[in-house]
Amino acid sequence: MSWKTYLEQHQSAHLAQFRDFLAIPSISAQPARSEDVQRAAQWLAARFQQAGFWQSGVLSTAGHPVVYAEHCPYPARPTVLFYGHYDVQPADNPERWNSPPFEPTLVDGRVVARGASDMKGQVMAFLLAAEALIASNSLNLNLKALIEGEEEISSPSLPAFIQQNQERLRCDLIINGDSGQLSETTPLLGLGVRGICALEFDLVGPSHDLHSGTWGGGLQNPLHAMAELVASLHNPDGSVAVKGFYDEVEPLSPTLREWYRQIPWDEAAELKKLGLQEFYGEAGYAHWERTTGRPTLEINGMWGGYTGPGGMTVIPSTAHAKITCRLVPHQNPEKMVALVRAHLEQHLPRGVRLQVRTKEAGAFAFRMSADHPGCVAAREVLAELYGVPPVEVMFGGSVPILATLKQLLGHDPVSFGFGLEDELIHSPNEFFRLSSFEKGKQGYAMLLGRLAQ
Amino acid sequence: MSWKTYLEQHQSAHLAQFRDFLAIPSISAQPARSEDVQRAAQWLAARFQQAGFWQSGVLSTAGHPVVYAEHCPYPARPTVLFYGHYDVQPADNPERWNSPPFEPTLVDGRVVARGASDMKGQVMAFLLAAEALIASNSLNLNLKALIEGEEEISSPSLPAFIQQNQERLRCDLIINGDSGQLSETTPLLGLGVRGICALEFDLVGPSHDLHSGTWGGGLQNPLHAMAELVASLHNPDGSVAVKGFYDEVEPLSPTLREWYRQIPWDEAAELKKLGLQEFYGEAGYAHWERTTGRPTLEINGMWGGYTGPGGMTVIPSTAHAKITCRLVPHQNPEKMVALVRAHLEQHLPRGVRLQVRTKEAGAFAFRMSADHPGCVAAREVLAELYGVPPVEVMFGGSVPILATLKQLLGHDPVSFGFGLEDELIHSPNEFFRLSSFEKGKQGYAMLLGRLAQ
Repeated sequence: MSWKTYLEQHQSAHLAQFRDFLAIPSISAQPARSEDVQRAAQWLAARFQQAGFWQSGVLSTAGHPVVYAEHCPYPARPTVLFYGHYDVQPADNPERWNSPPFEPTLVDGRVVARGASDMKGQVMAFLLAAEALIASNSLNLNLKALIEGEEEISSPSLPAFIQQNQERLRCDLIINGDSGQLSETTPLLGLGVRGICALEFDLVGPSHDLHSGTWGGGLQNPLHAMAELVASLHNPDGSVAVKGFYDEVEPLSPTLREWYRQIPWDEAAELKKLGLQEFYGEAGYAHWERTTGRPTLEINGMWGGYTGPGGMTVIPSTAHAKITCRLVPHQNPEKMVALVRAHLEQHLPRGVRLQVRTKEAGAFAFRMSADHPGCVAAREVLAELYGVPPVEVMFGGSVPILATLKQLLGHDPVSFGFGLEDELIHSPNEFFRLSSFEKGKQGYAMLLGRLAQ
Repeated sequence: MSWKTYLEQHQSAHLAQFRDFLAIPSISAQPARSEDVQRAAQWLAARFQQAGFWQSGVLSTAGHPVVYAEHCPYPARPTVLFYGHYDVQPADNPERWNSPPFEPTLVDGRVVARGASDMKGQVMAFLLAAEALIASNSLNLNLKALIEGEEEISSPSLPAFIQQNQERLRCDLIINGDSGQLSETTPLLGLGVRGICALEFDLVGPSHDLHSGTWGGGLQNPLHAMAELVASLHNPDGSVAVKGFYDEVEPLSPTLREWYRQIPWDEAAELKKLGLQEFYGEAGYAHWERTTGRPTLEINGMWGGYTGPGGMTVIPSTAHAKITCRLVPHQNPEKMVALVRAHLEQHLPRGVRLQVRTKEAGAFAFRMSADHPGCVAAREVLAELYGVPPVEVMFGGSVPILATLKQLLGHDPVSFGFGLEDELIHSPNEFFRLSSFEKGKQGYAMLLGRLAQ
């Protein structure tokens, strides 16, 4: 039996297993969910074992555990390491979900659930491709899988884990599954991601909330100070106003700008999809340049005072904000946090105190050559699978581990995944297409075949 | 038995009843609490009956009901109408309360509970004073009590109620109990309140939350737009930047400014109490002028994006803010809302849509003459009760009904209440002093005695 036949014959069982995996709310950001994270890891390790991997287990880190599996029957052949993550984003605002986020629901050829597209669907697709190759005796290389549980919180524990397991993780080529295609009909080859750094801050005013009638006009309202301070982070031309923010940024080369211009992009259709009148960003740059080639500073959350129904005439004691910056090559995440902190200190409005928290590890940006053997193989497989060659792009998001994998294991990870950008990742009603699930299984099987040649 | 002896003998029973009243979470702003609001009204009407009022009942309005009680045994003598409210502010953030907000707790001579100071304590004090006068045969005038259930949401239904009940509410003098004293040792005579208007708005960006990696830098982040728009509402000198905001505002007269200067105010002590380094407000004005004599615009709540623990790399679909303005004489609340709305429209940043909501009724400011017979009586009673004459001030807060009472019933309400400004009204751990509760009972009994002369 061929691997293709194997996959066809087990299609409905595989879908049921995917739904079991999705039903585990492995939200890494929320301490209350840590047992669920653990449970997802156990489930996945058992499933790798069942797929025929010779070794599979849940390995401790300083944070959420890593699932590690390996199947290395051929000492003389190359070894491919697959990277992915089994943790998911929070799923707050349950009222905005059409079905509960951890009760995977099939609608119109889609699986709706938190983590379906980002990225349990792709982890399952890889696992099932490997299972099919093993079951059909057509696996002709060695496989290792490193599936972490902290990607959605910037992978704080993984670098140390990799350092402590460098021998075990030795390989010849790395596949990064946390990636996607351009559309159902057009494949995509990712050649890089942006880096990231994060911080949170509070503005602290009076020691307790005050009545805005009795006190209004008499002291700094932390929400006014917050608005002023956050507004100071950007210039009127859309660029970031933090001093030194662009110091290490190399200008986009004419070749790169020309490469960007050739990415297909239907602006009107995208605006319509998002219900927007216009896109907006740094003056002098086009959309793909802004979202993948230039660094940014975004407020991800901002809050203070009364946010419930009706009114409450209060001057709150504190106001809060969360910031992430996306970085391009040469920007050091720690240094960028220091620059933002310095801006906040220097622009702090009168009458409030600043408290900055920087819990999350950052990540450098990552870019790789289009001529890398992994890219060449991926390009060929995608062309065969979709019938058209892949569009080649860089991603605006961050996969913090890419730069770390390269640094610690010595290989550029090849991005090869099947998410699509309309699948509401990080939003309510996240979904994954069943067609992508099928393409994913086939694609990974084909890629592993090609890499064995 | 004198009214004083009556109050002394029933002191502990009265305190127990006060705690029963506080235990009912009559939060007018939260629809889920409307049965509790109803229950508080029933409790209070029954208690007026028990106090000896000839009539007492719960009367419907378009919103939460009014408690109305009257005791008019003397057709030839003057009639005093007492105004108060039995609704309370929300009590969110239960983790910031040292004891549950609706389990009244006695600590160091204080009752800690939502609504203790604002203003169930003062409603009870008036009721018990009336009961003591009736029980001791020393009430020498007619009494009416109008206790509403919507003060904390700006009294939307009361004007219509008063209009429909003008005959029933006819009186010769109005006491407003929603008021306070300067400290435990210094009385206060309030000669006015600021008006108020309120609005809420949303800034709407993309139709759903987006990944801030994939999209960051490529479209307007509603939180950035919110910061910019809110920051535009004030000038660098602390004044409000809304066009026309000060058009109807009369300059403070030299006499009034001199009067303000004589209000006792220990700035260093107040800063210490609030944990602040400095006060801040409109340039060119002193604290009491800023907080009672000048109009203000305050953000009471501002929120959007991810506000939970950890990080979430999101560009939110929407951002939200709640605004109230405090108004001085001649400023029309409806007109002020229109001016703020126009400012928001004119300063709207690119890439977001504006949605404005204006649910709450506003209120004009109210000021009265220090020579009004009610003020003269209150001044004498307070001087006797505290041993020092009252400091005479205007309040920064709003009692929307004052201007309405004057307009509809033809009398300037005399503010006479016993809250103190450190009692954390509208904040967690609100409390009322037992000493104020006692002074309140005596003070109302003495005032009713003086007004009968």
